[in-house]
Amino acid sequence: MRQLDLSLLRAEFEAALDDYILHLDVSIDILKPMIYSLKGGGKRLRPLLLLATLEINNRQLIEYGMRTAIALEHIHTYSLIHDDLPAMDNDDLRRGNPTSHIQFNEATAILAGDALLTDAFGIIAQDDHLKAKQKVALISKLVQASGSVGMVAGQLKDIEGQNSSLSLAELNEIHYLKTGCLFNYSLEAAAIILNMEDKARKLLDRFGNAFGIAYQIHNDLMDVLGNVQVTGKHGQADAALNKATYPALIGVEESKASLNKEIKKAKIALKRLSNLTEQPYYLLETFIDYLNLDYHSH
Amino acid sequence: MRQLDLSLLRAEFEAALDDYILHLDVSIDILKPMIYSLKGGGKRLRPLLLLATLEINNRQLIEYGMRTAIALEHIHTYSLIHDDLPAMDNDDLRRGNPTSHIQFNEATAILAGDALLTDAFGIIAQDDHLKAKQKVALISKLVQASGSVGMVAGQLKDIEGQNSSLSLAELNEIHYLKTGCLFNYSLEAAAIILNMEDKARKLLDRFGNAFGIAYQIHNDLMDVLGNVQVTGKHGQADAALNKATYPALIGVEESKASLNKEIKKAKIALKRLSNLTEQPYYLLETFIDYLNLDYHSH
Repeated sequence: MRQLDLSLLRAEFEAALDDYILHLDVSIDILKPMIYSLKGGGKRLRPLLLLATLEINNRQLIEYGMRTAIALEHIHTYSLIHDDLPAMDNDDLRRGNPTSHIQFNEATAILAGDALLTDAFGIIAQDDHLKAKQKVALISKLVQASGSVGMVAGQLKDIEGQNSSLSLAELNEIHYLKTGCLFNYSLEAAAIILNMEDKARKLLDRFGNAFGIAYQIHNDLMDVLGNVQVTGKHGQADAALNKATYPALIGVEESKASLNKEIKKAKIALKRLSNLTEQPYYLLETFIDYLNLDYHSH
Repeated sequence: MRQLDLSLLRAEFEAALDDYILHLDVSIDILKPMIYSLKGGGKRLRPLLLLATLEINNRQLIEYGMRTAIALEHIHTYSLIHDDLPAMDNDDLRRGNPTSHIQFNEATAILAGDALLTDAFGIIAQDDHLKAKQKVALISKLVQASGSVGMVAGQLKDIEGQNSSLSLAELNEIHYLKTGCLFNYSLEAAAIILNMEDKARKLLDRFGNAFGIAYQIHNDLMDVLGNVQVTGKHGQADAALNKATYPALIGVEESKASLNKEIKKAKIALKRLSNLTEQPYYLLETFIDYLNLDYHSH
């Protein structure tokens, strides 16, 4: 049976990113902080979602999505640099390394983020593999996912929501805007490159929605369950957080139930998509395993 | 004789910008700081350069450039918001009003800048007046002018150059990257929309280069001559600045001479362009008058 090898796909992405960086003709002062964060050890989840969706159709198609995958990682990376700033989440560490404003300084971090964000759209515009209409669609949708109606709006709502009590609907909205949008875009980008039909796009989108929510609930649960081990606290650990989380709002057990419900939804969407297209989209289930999202689901 | 009415053109731009904002479906928290800065009383120089170049060819063409003009002003506005931040130039006032981080807060200012920057590319991508190939070219060139090889690189060099002595070549480079690039893009965008031939593009670019340098020298001179009136200091005022300026580097008299030289270059380029294309590009001289750039040039 065919399988998705995400480690191989990831290695191919890293190689393409390195090659892209190598050919940049950018002044060293701005290049250094850009590379520092781009190569900061991210999981590459968004690029992998895009590339895997292409691979499921035809391994040759990967190169048609590689530049868009690099652009996606630019957007994700810029958002982390800016989110970590003192005026925002004020984080000193990211993936075990000093954040950009600690490693360099605040001005450099702001500008490195601005450069990554700006360059992302050029990477797609200058991609020789795609038709002009595809590039315009890819850019247009990326702006929707990451700009004033997407990620940036989510980040502002998140900051404004700190230390205040959010409803479950508000929490869902923030997560959709902050992370869900860009997950969905990863799949939407594949659909654009594949010239996928509307019916199939909707099923892929449904998978993306469910996967995005599952990812966030899982993240929140890991925070709490991590705390149990570290601090010895149980239910009370939720209350100590000044950011709203699923366990804090609906409790650990209901969060686990919601997580499993979303995983099921995701799998159903993939099954339907496989049937409709006669392509093995069920292979995208690998992402659920990759994230260890199905613990407690047996 | 035909003339360019920049006030009329500006009124048309403001109306189009207002109309664009009116139709945005953006959450109010992020929309407010975006509008605050977008409508903060800028001269609209970059949009006007683009629109005037189109008008010279045919008044009907203005609407083909309006969305790109709005995108340009988004990029310019975001750059001002981020430049004013405490970690950068730390300015409290911009055009007589509180800067974004004073009016709102730092996080909101960073995010409003990010939203304006991101949305700019969507505004072009979603423009129904242009062909996909034109949109891709417009986006690609806008990234070059404003990203890691353009404006952002210039801003970083500018910050790093503070309190250190720059050469004239370094000062020229910083100004070209920080402001010249985007002036040139305004004209390049018109050339793309007009499908202009290479020879004409080069002359328009030469005008842009000369105009950009003239604009910067003029700005620097106004700072110094302003200081003369306010502080009573003369040559010594230059030394008090910890940012390098033309008067500080080459003196007031030589700065005036350089300004006049660039204005002459700009006018020659326009004359040649008018001859080559048989269109009245000399009308762009209005921009030199508009900025009062030709004082002391008689």
